[in-house]
Order: sequence, then structure tokens, then C-alpha cells
Amino acid sequence: MKKVAVIGVGCSKFGVRTDANISELGFEAVKPSLEDAGVDAEDVEFAAVGSVGSGAWYEELLPAVVVGEYCGLSGAGLVRCEAACASGSAAFFTAYSAVASGHAEIAMALGVEKMREIDSSTAMEWIGRAGYYFWEFHNFGMTFPAYYALYANAHMAKYGTTEEDMALVAVKNHKYASMNPVAHLRNKISVDDVLSSMVIASPLKLYDCSPITDGAASVIVASEEKVKELKVDTPVWIAGIGYSSGTANLSKRKDFVSLDASVLASQRAYRAAGISPNQLDFAEVHDCFTIAEIMAYEDLGFCGRGEGVKLLRDGQTEIGGKIPVNMDGGLKAKGHPIGATGCAMIYELTHQLRQDAVEKSRQIPMKNYVGLAHNVGGTGHYCYVTILRR
Amino acid sequence: MKKVAVIGVGCSKFGVRTDANISELGFEAVKPSLEDAGVDAEDVEFAAVGSVGSGAWYEELLPAVVVGEYCGLSGAGLVRCEAACASGSAAFFTAYSAVASGHAEIAMALGVEKMREIDSSTAMEWIGRAGYYFWEFHNFGMTFPAYYALYANAHMAKYGTTEEDMALVAVKNHKYASMNPVAHLRNKISVDDVLSSMVIASPLKLYDCSPITDGAASVIVASEEKVKELKVDTPVWIAGIGYSSGTANLSKRKDFVSLDASVLASQRAYRAAGISPNQLDFAEVHDCFTIAEIMAYEDLGFCGRGEGVKLLRDGQTEIGGKIPVNMDGGLKAKGHPIGATGCAMIYELTHQLRQDAVEKSRQIPMKNYVGLAHNVGGTGHYCYVTILRR
Repeated sequence: MKKVAVIGVGCSKFGVRTDANISELGFEAVKPSLEDAGVDAEDVEFAAVGSVGSGAWYEELLPAVVVGEYCGLSGAGLVRCEAACASGSAAFFTAYSAVASGHAEIAMALGVEKMREIDSSTAMEWIGRAGYYFWEFHNFGMTFPAYYALYANAHMAKYGTTEEDMALVAVKNHKYASMNPVAHLRNKISVDDVLSSMVIASPLKLYDCSPITDGAASVIVASEEKVKELKVDTPVWIAGIGYSSGTANLSKRKDFVSLDASVLASQRAYRAAGISPNQLDFAEVHDCFTIAEIMAYEDLGFCGRGEGVKLLRDGQTEIGGKIPVNMDGGLKAKGHPIGATGCAMIYELTHQLRQDAVEKSRQIPMKNYVGLAHNVGGTGHYCYVTILRR
Repeated sequence: MKKVAVIGVGCSKFGVRTDANISELGFEAVKPSLEDAGVDAEDVEFAAVGSVGSGAWYEELLPAVVVGEYCGLSGAGLVRCEAACASGSAAFFTAYSAVASGHAEIAMALGVEKMREIDSSTAMEWIGRAGYYFWEFHNFGMTFPAYYALYANAHMAKYGTTEEDMALVAVKNHKYASMNPVAHLRNKISVDDVLSSMVIASPLKLYDCSPITDGAASVIVASEEKVKELKVDTPVWIAGIGYSSGTANLSKRKDFVSLDASVLASQRAYRAAGISPNQLDFAEVHDCFTIAEIMAYEDLGFCGRGEGVKLLRDGQTEIGGKIPVNMDGGLKAKGHPIGATGCAMIYELTHQLRQDAVEKSRQIPMKNYVGLAHNVGGTGHYCYVTILRR
């Protein structure tokens, strides 16, 4: 398998970005990523764009082309990748594959999403469709928080997980987002703040949910030959990628305490990278809701089944712990611009592994220089797990 | 570069398919493709789904997941690829890359689109967005036929192409569609029929336009090792793929007689395959409008600039001619279910190269056993060119 490295990353400010259109938002990520890589837009032979809301949250139906032109990418091979909330990681895999297959020497994965220009009921409908529209949204009125509430209730019933435990995830992720200048929600919060916030879908409350965010992140990947030619200082290598998917119909799943797609995708990624979970220095996991982060600890093998809350209560997923998780604030507080999230995870992994451009207070100590990104689409409808190694 | 082959193809009946939902339509293509390849759904490690209209022409927002579950693909890596009308080819490149990168041994590209359940004005709006929505559709009211009418007028002015010439494309493609049982429009037509049909966007008339079609096509690709292991009778190898893109904004293009993206993508594909255009036995080109087929002859190097109509008038793009084009009826008459078209081209290429399952009357004589598929998204916003060799 050909070696491929991340050689440049960029990230826009996440938040309510009605000040920028889709092209301008993309540019905010693309420009620094090209500068970081030391290449020009014309050097990018293939670009995969992760974006879900074209024609829904924003008007442009061909964002890859429109943003591509604005960023000087016209002429490159282009594709838009959709894997719901894992679209950014799907774009990353696609850009990686274009290089790993020998088709391109330099490729880009750009995640970009504008979600804040439509009213919230329309936003709720679109996000609610990220499952099986016909059976679940249309017939039973499932919303997206309701999907994860179902998992939260099952996890509480089976393992004794409490609402306070879930609140701890929010508290941790807001704490680290407060140190991250690009994060959407930078306010520190307490367990009480979470517990007293408005119920969205019981037991999930407002602060258990990730915000609706605008944002973009860009990643440049290159072949080993190109890394040498460009004399890249600190290439960050793609050690392994795993992918999987789950049933569209939730009634076809065996239980609601774990996402099969996360388990399978991570096992495949560990096998590809030739490592076990305890060799990871840190991880970015898909905490679209607080319960999702706890399930991820278990699904990704950071601990045994039902032991996620122990890891959390003991502070093992904070800096200084066994495996720091979401030290950029996660989806929960950095924000979750659906198509951008996967690329934003790679952005964070890359800076942490290079130990540059990360605020000192949230810099993770490294032993093996290996980090993992876990990106879920829908309720485990899609999953991509990416392992990077310096 | 790892060798990758097409080992199985399937295609649904194209047409007005309100009898089938998106999953059933996908299944009509997936099932025969698996049978053709001699593999099971569980053997597919990665599937790329080309589809544009999710949430627009049809309701499901995650067609890859919903169709995937129905077809038994849950557990495979999944992504939906959008490259406007070239989405099927983008999915094919993605599935190919997953294998060529060494990540999967067997992958699937499935193109599936349902466009006939919404009213025609909504369809017109969505298709009109396949450019630069904000400037061209929203501000100037450009529709998709208007885009190609602009090219037709420029081509007529520069090269003396006539309305009768364009009509010849429609006549040829309807003739061959009449021999193709899966085609949407199977009526033979005359030049007079075309010329007397309703004007859509002058000089393009109804019969110059491809129909709005429902349909699906599926392609299974495999690594060289897997081809040997499965003892595939007649693998059809991917000899080369080229991609490119054009500006979103048409005002930034240098002329309107050619699509730069087609020129660039085809040059890259020829280089990758190590062939020149005159070694091709046949081609499938993107005839969304009749003028597009004439431009394609020139852009792909089948003839010189302005010589496309001569090729056509001399019958050189029919069976027995220098390079038969669109012997399945093309987008013009087989139909153009946007996300499926690219995969349907590979379906046709594969059967022609294997010389099986193609009606005798439209079977192309082979010398080099090499064919090309040319798939354009928007008005040259995206382009993918794929060369297959038996």
C-alpha cells in the first residue's frame, strides 16, 4: 500500500457564520491549508468536498465546483462526498485513495457546511432525515435528538449510566473548547448547567446536544515521493483507515447501547495500522450528543462494555489521563458543521501530532505519536475511523 | 498502479419508474451485477453510490444507506458521490480507488436516481442549479437547456454547425435506443421530427434534449488477485481514468464551443491508458443535448476542431464507422437518470467489450477491445473519462 501523508491543514472559525457565503467559508480553510503544505492551489490534482446541505441548508447545488472556483481549484478532479455527519471523513478517505491508488500526487479533502441561514424547524427536518426518512421520520416523527435519546435510555437501563455522567462529557468538552479560539461554544459550564437546561428529547437536554454550526476545514495529502520532493518538515502519515455502515432501519439493530458500525470500522482501522487501542495517545470521537462520546469509548475499545462512564468519572479522557478525548472541544462545543467535522478532526490530530499551533493548555503529551479520529454519520449509518501517526 | 477490473454489471429498466422506490430501483441494478460477478452482497467491502437528488427529486437523504440496507450491503464502507450529471463516474472512480489503493478487494459503484416523482417546474429548478446557482440561476434565470443553447449558438456561429446536424445526433441515438430494451425512449425519429418539435431554448428543441429519467446501474470492481481467485471469465480492465473540472461561473470561460474539462480529462485518461483516440473501438459520450455529442467528438480528439459534424454526417459514429458512439441510445434516448448515467456507461462498455448480452443489431466490431466513457457534470463543471480494455 502506498504511503500517504497529511502535509497541510486549515480550519475556519466555527460558529454562526452568516458573515461568509459557502465559498468564503471554504476559502478560510483552504488558504491556510495550502500555506501550511507549501503548495499552490494549482498543485492540487484532485479535491473531495464533504458537504451535505447543498440545496437544503444553503442554495448552491454544486458546492465542490463553486467553492473550487473561488479557491482556484478549477481544473482539478472534483467530487462531493456525502456520508451524513461523516462526510468530512468520507472526503478524506476519497482524497487519500486518489493518492494511494497512484492517480494523484497531491489531493485535498475539504469539509464545508453552512447550516445557520435557514429556520430551525427546517434544519430539524433536514437533520431528522439523516436516518430512514420514509419509515422513521415521516411515519414516526423521529428527530435526530430522539434517535440518540433512544440510545441514551438503553445505555442507562443496561449499564446504570446517569444523566450526571452524560453531563460530564459536556463539561469536559466545553472546558477544552474555551481554550480553542476556533470553537463555536467557548463558555465553561457546570454539571448543574447541563442538568437544568431545557429537555430536548428525554434524557437529553440542550447541553447534551452539539450546536448547529457553520464551518470549514481543509486537509492536503501527498504521496511519499511528493513529501520528499517538498521537503515536508513533519509529515503526518495515514496509518490506517476503517469504514463500515449500519442498517438504515433502526428496528433491524440488535441493541441500542453501541453502534456496530463504530466497532467494525475501528477494528478495521486498528488492523490496517497494526496497533491496538492502548497504543493511542489521544482521540477525536463523534460526540454529537454526550451519550455518543460514552458509547464511543466502549465501541472503540478504550475500555470494556459499560465501563465508559468510569473512564470519564476518573478523568482518564482529559489531559494527563489514559487517553485524552476531544481536546479541541469536540462536536459538542467546537461545533458540528456536518460536512466539515471529519476534516476538522484531522486538522486537530495533525496539529497535536506535530505539537504546533495548539494552545499549551490543551496540548496532549505524546508517547507513540498516534491519534485516532472517529466520525459517525447518522446514528451509526455510516462510520469512518482514521488513524494518523507522526 | 494496482490493476483493477470490472467483474460484474447490472442495469435497471430506464424510464418513468413510479412503480419502484429508490431502494427497489437500486436493487434492480445491484442484483444482476452481483450475479454477473459471481459474488454475494457481503463480499462487497466498499460501495460508492452516485446520486444527486436525495431530498430534492426523492425524499431519502441517505440513499447510500437506505438502498444499501435493501441490497444487503450494511456493514460495507459507504459514501454517496455527487458530481452533478457525472456522479456515476465519480462513484466509479471512488470504488476503483478503494481497490487500487489496496483498501478493498471488491467494491461497488451504484448509480441510482429517481427524478419523475416531482412536478416539472421543481425538476427544472433543481437541474438549473447544476451550475452557479447564485449568479446564473437566481440572478439571470439560466435553465439547463439555456446553458447548452449558449454552446450550440456559439458552435453554429464559429463552425457552421446547423440545426439539421444536431438533429442527426438525436436520430442516430433514437435508432440505437430502439434496439435496446432498457432504454427510455425507444421510438425511431426523423430529422423532421426533431426540427418540428417544440423549441425549448433556441436553437435546442424538445428532441435535442435528453429526457428526465428514473434508473439505476451497478458495477462491481475487483483487484487482480480477486479476479484470479474468482476465476473471472472475461475481466474488463480499467486502463485509465482522467478527471477535471471547469469554472462554476460561465463568464469566466474563454469560449463556448468546447468544454475545457472534457479536453483535460480525456488527455489525462489517454495518458494513463497509454493510448491515443484512434485506438478506441467505440465510445459512450455525454449527449445530454445533441450539441454536447458533437462537441464531445472534438473535445475527445475523435476529429479536429469544427469537424464533428463531418464525422456525424458521414456516419462515422455509427456501427461500421470509424468510432461508433452511444450505441445504447445515449443519454438522449436511453435516458439520463443523473446519478446513474456514469455507471450505465460502464455497463454498456463492459457488455460491448465482452461481446455478450448486447443485441446483435447494435453490437460493435472490436479491433483493440478498448472503449471510452465520457461523463460530464453540469456544463463541463465536472468531467470524468474512463477507458476500459478487455
